[in-house]
Amino acid sequence: MKFVPASCIKLDDPLWSKQFDLVRNVVLPHMWEILNGRVENAEKSRCIENFKIAAGLSNAQYYGPVFGDSDLYKWLEAVSYCLALDNDPRLNDLCDQVIDLIEAAQQPDGYLNTYFTVVAPEKRWTNLMEGHELYCAGHLMEAAVAHYQATRKVKLLDVACRFADLIHSIFGTDKRRGYPGHPEIELALIRLYEVTCKERYLSLAGYFINERGVGKNIFEEERQQDGHAYIFPEMEHFKADYFQSHLPVREQLRVTGHAVRAMYLFSGMADFARLTNDPALIEACKRLYENTVSRQMYVTGGVGSACSGERFTVDFDLPSDSAYAESCASIGLMLFSSRMWLLDPRKSYYDVWEQVLHNNVLSGMGRDGKHFFYVNPLEVVPQTVSSNPMLSHVKTQRQKWFGVACCPPNLARILTSMCGYIYALDNDRLYILSHIGSSFEQGGLYVKLCHDGDTYTLMVDGGPTDVFLRLPENSELIGDQFGNPSNGYFSLHHAGGKRQYSYSLKPVIRLLRAHPSVSALTGKTCVQRGQTIYCVEGSDNEVPLSALRLPVDAVFTEEKADWLQEDLPILKTTGYSVSDLNWEKKLYDSQPCVYEPREITFIPYSHWGNRGENEMRVWLTEKQAKSNIQESE
Amino acid sequence: MKFVPASCIKLDDPLWSKQFDLVRNVVLPHMWEILNGRVENAEKSRCIENFKIAAGLSNAQYYGPVFGDSDLYKWLEAVSYCLALDNDPRLNDLCDQVIDLIEAAQQPDGYLNTYFTVVAPEKRWTNLMEGHELYCAGHLMEAAVAHYQATRKVKLLDVACRFADLIHSIFGTDKRRGYPGHPEIELALIRLYEVTCKERYLSLAGYFINERGVGKNIFEEERQQDGHAYIFPEMEHFKADYFQSHLPVREQLRVTGHAVRAMYLFSGMADFARLTNDPALIEACKRLYENTVSRQMYVTGGVGSACSGERFTVDFDLPSDSAYAESCASIGLMLFSSRMWLLDPRKSYYDVWEQVLHNNVLSGMGRDGKHFFYVNPLEVVPQTVSSNPMLSHVKTQRQKWFGVACCPPNLARILTSMCGYIYALDNDRLYILSHIGSSFEQGGLYVKLCHDGDTYTLMVDGGPTDVFLRLPENSELIGDQFGNPSNGYFSLHHAGGKRQYSYSLKPVIRLLRAHPSVSALTGKTCVQRGQTIYCVEGSDNEVPLSALRLPVDAVFTEEKADWLQEDLPILKTTGYSVSDLNWEKKLYDSQPCVYEPREITFIPYSHWGNRGENEMRVWLTEKQAKSNIQESE
Repeated sequence: MKFVPASCIKLDDPLWSKQFDLVRNVVLPHMWEILNGRVENAEKSRCIENFKIAAGLSNAQYYGPVFGDSDLYKWLEAVSYCLALDNDPRLNDLCDQVIDLIEAAQQPDGYLNTYFTVVAPEKRWTNLMEGHELYCAGHLMEAAVAHYQATRKVKLLDVACRFADLIHSIFGTDKRRGYPGHPEIELALIRLYEVTCKERYLSLAGYFINERGVGKNIFEEERQQDGHAYIFPEMEHFKADYFQSHLPVREQLRVTGHAVRAMYLFSGMADFARLTNDPALIEACKRLYENTVSRQMYVTGGVGSACSGERFTVDFDLPSDSAYAESCASIGLMLFSSRMWLLDPRKSYYDVWEQVLHNNVLSGMGRDGKHFFYVNPLEVVPQTVSSNPMLSHVKTQRQKWFGVACCPPNLARILTSMCGYIYALDNDRLYILSHIGSSFEQGGLYVKLCHDGDTYTLMVDGGPTDVFLRLPENSELIGDQFGNPSNGYFSLHHAGGKRQYSYSLKPVIRLLRAHPSVSALTGKTCVQRGQTIYCVEGSDNEVPLSALRLPVDAVFTEEKADWLQEDLPILKTTGYSVSDLNWEKKLYDSQPCVYEPREITFIPYSHWGNRGENEMRVWLTEKQAKSNIQESE
Repeated sequence: MKFVPASCIKLDDPLWSKQFDLVRNVVLPHMWEILNGRVENAEKSRCIENFKIAAGLSNAQYYGPVFGDSDLYKWLEAVSYCLALDNDPRLNDLCDQVIDLIEAAQQPDGYLNTYFTVVAPEKRWTNLMEGHELYCAGHLMEAAVAHYQATRKVKLLDVACRFADLIHSIFGTDKRRGYPGHPEIELALIRLYEVTCKERYLSLAGYFINERGVGKNIFEEERQQDGHAYIFPEMEHFKADYFQSHLPVREQLRVTGHAVRAMYLFSGMADFARLTNDPALIEACKRLYENTVSRQMYVTGGVGSACSGERFTVDFDLPSDSAYAESCASIGLMLFSSRMWLLDPRKSYYDVWEQVLHNNVLSGMGRDGKHFFYVNPLEVVPQTVSSNPMLSHVKTQRQKWFGVACCPPNLARILTSMCGYIYALDNDRLYILSHIGSSFEQGGLYVKLCHDGDTYTLMVDGGPTDVFLRLPENSELIGDQFGNPSNGYFSLHHAGGKRQYSYSLKPVIRLLRAHPSVSALTGKTCVQRGQTIYCVEGSDNEVPLSALRLPVDAVFTEEKADWLQEDLPILKTTGYSVSDLNWEKKLYDSQPCVYEPREITFIPYSHWGNRGENEMRVWLTEKQAKSNIQESE
């Protein structure tokens, strides 16, 4: 079972085509300007300049974080997904120039990292914990694979293979011990293996996975080396579990530490487990996935609760206002989820995949394509954010760019490649995992899925094949041509030839509650329509939003909002607000709450903060019994 | 109108005598050992040694924070309150030795600060923002006044006056500009003025108050001096409002910045406003008090929400789990409240005074007198505290000592001096502000208040005088001999001679809610009995406490608990817990909450954490409608 790669898929979907076009037409050109340091009032980036310095084409000073190269690689990966669908010659040329520059920055032995080449050549591979050399190498490989799949040009692939071969010659059993402080290369080497079929890339990925947390911790050894200096001084106090190297990966019971590192590592583990059919590793992946999504994930699909170290904390610790929920971490959870599905085609993996994509990921990018969230809180009171230093990581408005700029290019690559995870094929089976308007042709099979509102038309030409339609969570699927669903899939046998099938897919609106152990969410409820989580914003509702009450039996009406140019509606219901009439100069009192009926307007969480700074809240306090006007309790 | 000083009052109260005796018999001897660095596994203190070094009696190395001297002064102040009531010769001698040591450490010109004398003599007065010289001077003066009032010995008073005279010769109009980075000396100079009647101490206090925030900020000027170095590097980024020096004090509208500094400054302001009858300053005190207690105070009387900078944040920002609510800040709020009452005898100032004393202050010290809270959270889940770095300031158990050891000696001095704020007298009026069993004789008037449970007997001998009994918040006072209450006071005319009056005072149990704008407390309620806030602990209740629901119409029964050796009962009621039966492997779901009836046990917040580490929670989610067994919603 394999996914139909993004490079083969043409998107034609009211919501997702717009996102794709926004990335291609606005985000990527804008990022190019940023990477060249040509955008005013944005965090400074000298990414391209650093490559020129490393290539001997500039005498400027290196500027930027040690992992800066990955920004360009992620940009190139995203651009490649665009090229696959629409070979814009201007963009094609630009890629070729960039690839020439990258090749020029590669050292004769294949080494490629502008920071260590320019700033600290003698420190190569001496600080795997913080140096991000293997991390950047991984993003180079992913970009190379994407560019090759899009253009069939091999230049960048050759660059990546040369570097991969160098790394393979250095690290491994009977060679030097090592594994990355920031995983990424594991899954990247496997992508490289899948296009090149070179076994050594697979085995190197396996080495990094299997060596991790075994025997003496190599990061401890590094710290003890003479002349060791921290690149990130705060890391001095981080323990092995922060780097997921506290135990052999097969023995890890809970997800710990830096959220992006964890998601990337587990994604590589899932790939390797599938390709080697390793039961213990499969078991570990399932256990860690389970812990992530059923104990440590926000309802928006965000992961990593704590700002300090951008990390996972402990089961059920999911504060809304101080949430970190980094955009990159949720992208990592999408990668992990789709890979888990390949291991075990349970539909629930895609319930999470869609939950993450439709909410935390989509919220990461502003509607203008030029502003981004790194941190994705579930509750914001602007004056509190600006006054309480504990919330200094929270931004109430999307930012132009970041000193650590991992998120924007990561959003660009996932939004241009997510279609590469929605169809899966093997000899006689076609899985449609997410109902996104799109089409592809592969191995004599042509498939086209389009929808008009809730009405979907699936055209299949070729086959024969069994078609499995995944029932998305919180939706109703009705299709006479399909049998009864089994394990969350509707299926039919396509006998061959060209046929059209139709079905309707209706999102359901429901109220969600959290597990009773989630301390921050006791007594609270949130609104979900299909996979979309909704929130309230100050612009639509009386503030303070904390005074709003949502009745347990709320009935919602759907409306179109002009500012929200999506096929997503806003929702309205009659709820209540607690009157502050008798609270003048009081902070605590025994007086009964007086509830006033009030229309409450909900918008998709993914679109909050697009109308200026204001309050936002996902979880509202539930009002259990329906009340009469001015009811007191 | 003046308070009857603590030195004249004999406590005889089931709750407060025990606290007093615990401080005298356990806390103070224990602290003496600590100050001498003789306690194992406690944060190291070399306070006494530092004085010996400054006195030329030791060649050891200075050790400890720049404000370390204040620990000894606060200890000495507390010991003095004990001496006033019971002239223990051994303690008396120890004080005399300590005072000899302090005098020996004083420099010929009157200067007294071990850090600057030993470590940085050339830096005297060069860093008022961080140096704490004026702060330590203030605590010396308070100790000197207390010791003089207790023993009539003048040696320490002379030491304090010599230092005050030096400071007066340096700072002031037409002299050097200055004011303390950490207020305290203002209120201390006024205490010194009140025992010595030397006007210059009053006017120096006034200078520090009036100069603050006027013209160019002197802390800014200090930062710009050549050779300026930060003592606390983090302060580099703190703005003027952190030090309450952003505006002239009369123009400050909201309480800002470091909570202890603010409370001490405002206390001094209230004293100075009263003594000078300055309308603008009185107005400012009332405004800042109002903002503190009606917008930024925890229900436990804690103030200062944010760990970073131990500071106030913004109106209604009162998170329970990350609360800072430093013990010292709440002590400062008691000082501020009692001084506001002298300005304007409204009974509500004492509602706050008692709310703070009975809850945040009492919680600061463990029942063994050897463990203390610096931070007083309102909600603790131990595994979350240990895993989420954002909560690293929270301790789930009281600590032996602290690197910054301001709180334990401050608790000792307030618990031995609080009786000095409960009686106020002038020519023909006696105010009884807090109903604490005690007696005093002053100016031919003998007053004795005792109680047996809810029955109080007031004996007055002398007079004539009008007696005003304050009605405590959330209590019922019944007394036939008293007229109808007016403005919260019951009163009677004592015609003279010896007479006994009796009344009953019953605490009421009620549920409190917070202002609808308090985002962290939406939908929550807490239990208050009299002035005592209650909480639930894991030891008495099924965890997770987040699953508990408290019905709006809960009825409570009072019980005696063996472990709780106070005249405070524990409370029990029938509430609910949300079943987690159907939540296996689920984190979010639309299923209705299933409520199971459950007995909930509440204990006084002040006594949490005395039975080992476990969950604690003050605010429970309110269940609006009373439910039947297994009711679903």
